[in-house]
Amino acid sequence: MTDYRRLRVALLGAGAVGSQVASLLRKHGDELADRAGAHLELIGIAVRNPDAPRDADLPRELLTTDPEPLIVGADIVIELMGGIEPARSYLLQAINSGADVVTANKALLATHGPEIFEAADQVGAQVYYEAAAAGAIPIIRPLRDSLAGDRVQRIMGIVNGTTNYILDRMDSEGAEFADVLADAQRLGYAEADPTADVEGYDAAQKAAILASLAFHTSVPLEAVHREGITGIDKAMMDAARHAGYVIKLLAVCERLTGADGAESISVRVYPALVRRDHPLASVHGANNAVFVQAEAAGNLMFYGAGAGGVQTASAVLGDVVSAARRHLAGGVGVGESNRANLPILPIANVTTRYQITLEVDDQPGVLATVAGILSEGDVSIATVEQTVRSEPVPGNGSPVTEPASDTVARLVIGTHKALEQNLSETVDRLAASGVVERVVSVLRVEGD
Amino acid sequence: MTDYRRLRVALLGAGAVGSQVASLLRKHGDELADRAGAHLELIGIAVRNPDAPRDADLPRELLTTDPEPLIVGADIVIELMGGIEPARSYLLQAINSGADVVTANKALLATHGPEIFEAADQVGAQVYYEAAAAGAIPIIRPLRDSLAGDRVQRIMGIVNGTTNYILDRMDSEGAEFADVLADAQRLGYAEADPTADVEGYDAAQKAAILASLAFHTSVPLEAVHREGITGIDKAMMDAARHAGYVIKLLAVCERLTGADGAESISVRVYPALVRRDHPLASVHGANNAVFVQAEAAGNLMFYGAGAGGVQTASAVLGDVVSAARRHLAGGVGVGESNRANLPILPIANVTTRYQITLEVDDQPGVLATVAGILSEGDVSIATVEQTVRSEPVPGNGSPVTEPASDTVARLVIGTHKALEQNLSETVDRLAASGVVERVVSVLRVEGD
Repeated sequence: MTDYRRLRVALLGAGAVGSQVASLLRKHGDELADRAGAHLELIGIAVRNPDAPRDADLPRELLTTDPEPLIVGADIVIELMGGIEPARSYLLQAINSGADVVTANKALLATHGPEIFEAADQVGAQVYYEAAAAGAIPIIRPLRDSLAGDRVQRIMGIVNGTTNYILDRMDSEGAEFADVLADAQRLGYAEADPTADVEGYDAAQKAAILASLAFHTSVPLEAVHREGITGIDKAMMDAARHAGYVIKLLAVCERLTGADGAESISVRVYPALVRRDHPLASVHGANNAVFVQAEAAGNLMFYGAGAGGVQTASAVLGDVVSAARRHLAGGVGVGESNRANLPILPIANVTTRYQITLEVDDQPGVLATVAGILSEGDVSIATVEQTVRSEPVPGNGSPVTEPASDTVARLVIGTHKALEQNLSETVDRLAASGVVERVVSVLRVEGD
Repeated sequence: MTDYRRLRVALLGAGAVGSQVASLLRKHGDELADRAGAHLELIGIAVRNPDAPRDADLPRELLTTDPEPLIVGADIVIELMGGIEPARSYLLQAINSGADVVTANKALLATHGPEIFEAADQVGAQVYYEAAAAGAIPIIRPLRDSLAGDRVQRIMGIVNGTTNYILDRMDSEGAEFADVLADAQRLGYAEADPTADVEGYDAAQKAAILASLAFHTSVPLEAVHREGITGIDKAMMDAARHAGYVIKLLAVCERLTGADGAESISVRVYPALVRRDHPLASVHGANNAVFVQAEAAGNLMFYGAGAGGVQTASAVLGDVVSAARRHLAGGVGVGESNRANLPILPIANVTTRYQITLEVDDQPGVLATVAGILSEGDVSIATVEQTVRSEPVPGNGSPVTEPASDTVARLVIGTHKALEQNLSETVDRLAASGVVERVVSVLRVEGD
């Protein structure tokens, strides 16, 4: 073995990802040393309970319940505890002790990113977080470095594997949300409490991180508009398929230019209709993908596993090697270039296309009334499809073509780009109009 | 404008990419300064003929025919001249003058990469070359940095836009190679002399660069097995489609482990059959994609425009910003970690699956004879499809089911994994066997 300098690595947390990181650090030690130019010595692993069962076979003598001596004695600190505290304090302590830090903690970065990056800047340390944005998919370096000379216009990301797994199965099997969720929980694709995934909280954290990077600005988590997928049912999926779309939970980060030339951004997470021939439509199962539109580079897509202990460990170890190389190269950390300070638009000010599905009385003049309300609300109609069916039965979306005695019609209205605020007020007016029996769904269309 | 330090940038070459780089450097100067933390001052552009027509409106006073003063006065030198000399000498001179260098020159890196990286290591400079591997697709940083803690097992890349454009149109339109090539030349997708693209030379250079990075070893261009697409005809395309495949020109970089546990790699470029449901099959037009299989990260794919002046300029400018950040951060360049010295297998020692298409006499016992020859050659049969048609007409691949008086049968044989050498000798024996009228095609199958 080459006689490399030794760098001391401390690991905080030994859950699914941490165990794999520790295991790979030991298994591929010699090879990692060649890559990094230094021997990466794992000096200890801080855990809450040293006797808890672990995925990987970790040497008992490395485990400790006292992280502080590890942190102050390390060149590189890997934080895989999750949560805000004590992870935040430990990361700041590591930075102030002269270590470079690696974290996969998206909740922490989405809420306290600026504080942590600022602390690192002060002392010339570097923060690495490839695993915090889209699991194993290398997206941080492409956005921060490869596209640093370009202008990202738009990101559309499938950044949550659980919801993509659920929506993909609903689409391919014609199953209902609750049934697929239960199955996903049984198979380990969804947590016992699935809220963070299915309500879009996890995707919103990643959206904040991706938008901050892509637009070189600071995006607080509160500024991310968030909707989950619990309202998506089989009927919506069927209707989407019929219209040539698939429903995906998207993190959309968009750069907008106002009439005065002033720039702003919008960051939002919601289930949206995506055309079947869009590259994002073919992202199946628990996979993730990030579709990037840049001014010069054009359309790019990054695809891979969004989660999983060993996959995420790959991203963490890549960061550890980068940190080691930087330690050897000398110099100070490069820092985040969050200098743009772009205003972040509220969702009401965002424009997209919509698909509105209504159940209306099957009577003459109804379409004219509906069209009039849309027009008054500044919502321009691109397409209308009307199907007539018998008395609406909740949960049964199959249209029949024979009009029954007391019939309702289903209107599927595709709009041109409309302002969210106009659209939302218009839908309220439609619901109160007397000719609309039920607003079946209002979905945004992305990626056209 | 913030009072940034100034970094002097010299540009060598103002062709399609260089013009765009110069134009974007000027257009987005303030924004790039924010990203880089330094003002990037373009001090000059070395060209052969200052009066040649250019894509972008470059200030005449920046153009010079004398690169040397630019090179010695620059902090960052961007080499976009192409070719081996004088590009190589200029890059070495820039490195030895203390500059960091950015290049898109795949021919140079594939042939003189180790010399250039070694020179940079000696003085602590850094070489950036994102644009040399797959156009605008960010692949260098993911392979070198993000996956540095993982083990790449396999890369399958569509890394040449011209050939993908041609093959995609042959597939979708049922057109012949020569017709699509002529059209591609007319539309600017192919050069007047298309040899570098259609014979796989360009893809082989990129394969050498990708394999060097992915396996942290040095891969000389001569070690890359290379076949082009000029032998692919409509009949092969039709047969591939019929069997559920599409033909793509692939750069395959593979890590292999021998029976003794010793590792080697194989790097090869050839047209191969790819299953229609593989992510690479849906890469259309002149786009590129790099599919990466890593031990921990699993399957990843990077997709985008493979070429084009402005797209490639995006990759170059990303490198310029990285170089500027490094200049400001201080320290020495990180260097390439080409430490593995893995042996590179000749193509004869590589195993893949094959699809062999034969025209044979339609007589009893022929299949038994063919199967016997394959078995003797250690080539195991996975599938056989036999169709009977009339006397073969060259260039007319449409089978008719009515046997004519003097009939031949077409055999499409899918093999299990076989050693290239065995396969090749076996095909020779088949051709000489007396029962085989014609070996229609032998294609490798990748990505299963």
